[in-house]
Amino acid sequence: MRIDVLTLFPEMFEGVFGSSILGKARDKGLVSLSTLNFRDFSTNKHNTVDDTPYGGGGGMVLKPEPIFGAVEHLLGQAGNGEPEPSSAKPPRIVLMCPQGEPLTQRKAQELSGESHLIFVCGHYEGYDERIREHLVTDELSIGDYVLTGGELPAMVVIDTVVRLLPGVLGNEQSAVTDSFSDGLLEYPHYTRPPEFRGWKVPDVLLSGHHAEIDKWRRHQSLERTHSRRPELLHVVELTEKERKWLEERRRTENGSD
Amino acid sequence: MRIDVLTLFPEMFEGVFGSSILGKARDKGLVSLSTLNFRDFSTNKHNTVDDTPYGGGGGMVLKPEPIFGAVEHLLGQAGNGEPEPSSAKPPRIVLMCPQGEPLTQRKAQELSGESHLIFVCGHYEGYDERIREHLVTDELSIGDYVLTGGELPAMVVIDTVVRLLPGVLGNEQSAVTDSFSDGLLEYPHYTRPPEFRGWKVPDVLLSGHHAEIDKWRRHQSLERTHSRRPELLHVVELTEKERKWLEERRRTENGSD
Repeated sequence: MRIDVLTLFPEMFEGVFGSSILGKARDKGLVSLSTLNFRDFSTNKHNTVDDTPYGGGGGMVLKPEPIFGAVEHLLGQAGNGEPEPSSAKPPRIVLMCPQGEPLTQRKAQELSGESHLIFVCGHYEGYDERIREHLVTDELSIGDYVLTGGELPAMVVIDTVVRLLPGVLGNEQSAVTDSFSDGLLEYPHYTRPPEFRGWKVPDVLLSGHHAEIDKWRRHQSLERTHSRRPELLHVVELTEKERKWLEERRRTENGSD
Repeated sequence: MRIDVLTLFPEMFEGVFGSSILGKARDKGLVSLSTLNFRDFSTNKHNTVDDTPYGGGGGMVLKPEPIFGAVEHLLGQAGNGEPEPSSAKPPRIVLMCPQGEPLTQRKAQELSGESHLIFVCGHYEGYDERIREHLVTDELSIGDYVLTGGELPAMVVIDTVVRLLPGVLGNEQSAVTDSFSDGLLEYPHYTRPPEFRGWKVPDVLLSGHHAEIDKWRRHQSLERTHSRRPELLHVVELTEKERKWLEERRRTENGSD
């Protein structure tokens, strides 16, 4: 997979692209990660990339020319400086913005099947609408909170996508995430020491009874999901017994309020 | 404000803490941003920080000793190596994890009123439950997608918090975010040139009629919010006329399905 990021702050990406899972995936040749400063594609002599909005109001708006220019530069080059073969699947061009589709694990999975992703990151400013309408294929948001730019959101999307590529995660790491697959929050984990400052590991985990351990973990997951994120329970498959327990739990809580 | 991040990958933070708004806020002395590798607080001779989970299963679990040790090291030092004065507000200790409270703008605002934040970032592994129960004050998640670690989420939270600190954003940048405050998605922005590759800026924005421009923008915001994120409209204050328009819109769409 090839990933390009258009940004005014390429230096923000160095430490992140070079470390940990992303760094290893790049070292193994499983993904290419590059940044491109779209200021280099400014069409005016002051190298500006933004301008005041038509119709007035605060803030600056990113101009269309530098972003179109940078994307077209990328489309015109393959690894060897030749244009990408016309048979190649066209890249997904992803605009990071608060108005975008909320990122989900399903979306990350979908993007992990592509061969070329281009991320466009604005900073404080809005984007000229023509970028949105005529250039990008996707608009993504990582959540309903206000960030100073699209760089951190792009890193977040890239991390969720790259870890899904074949060969990137070792078995041990994959196993950790399997625990998300049932749609519940994870149960509590404990490791050595069995007693730390007087706080003990629950007996059941030291018992060696695997059926009991599974039962305890499932119950803890349900309990935690119920108390922290009850809305997630709507999409989880529960056994008859679990459903009854949950109904009883809700009844008791409502009664005691 | 003082912010410390406990992480096994401090190098991931360098580019992000040194650039753009965060870098400027640090240069102006408005925030101190530091990382601490909790591997330095391992209590065994191999410097390990994780171990296999009690009760079996895949993945590794972060041990309690290094995290407790690192946090207590931070609590024991003020700027000059002296303990923080006992009159100081205790720090918020924030664990980044998928089971945490979902980050919201309200949460960012709340955290921006603190004087000391400590972020704890795990990587692939789970955390020993005793860290969760007996050390941290908050658990946060940035969204329901799977990341390789807590580092990017911590950066996201830090960005949302620091930009709210007095003096960090210039007026121009603040103005941009004001457009979120009505709870709707932003309207389309346009800047020069008035025509780009045949795509023109809407006439109304070039008209100079401010009342018409405001009307157009409000309508575009409503339209976009309705089509992309209808759930947000439940918490937005609408005028009588807007409510009627929206009802009509929903009726038409349901009829044409």
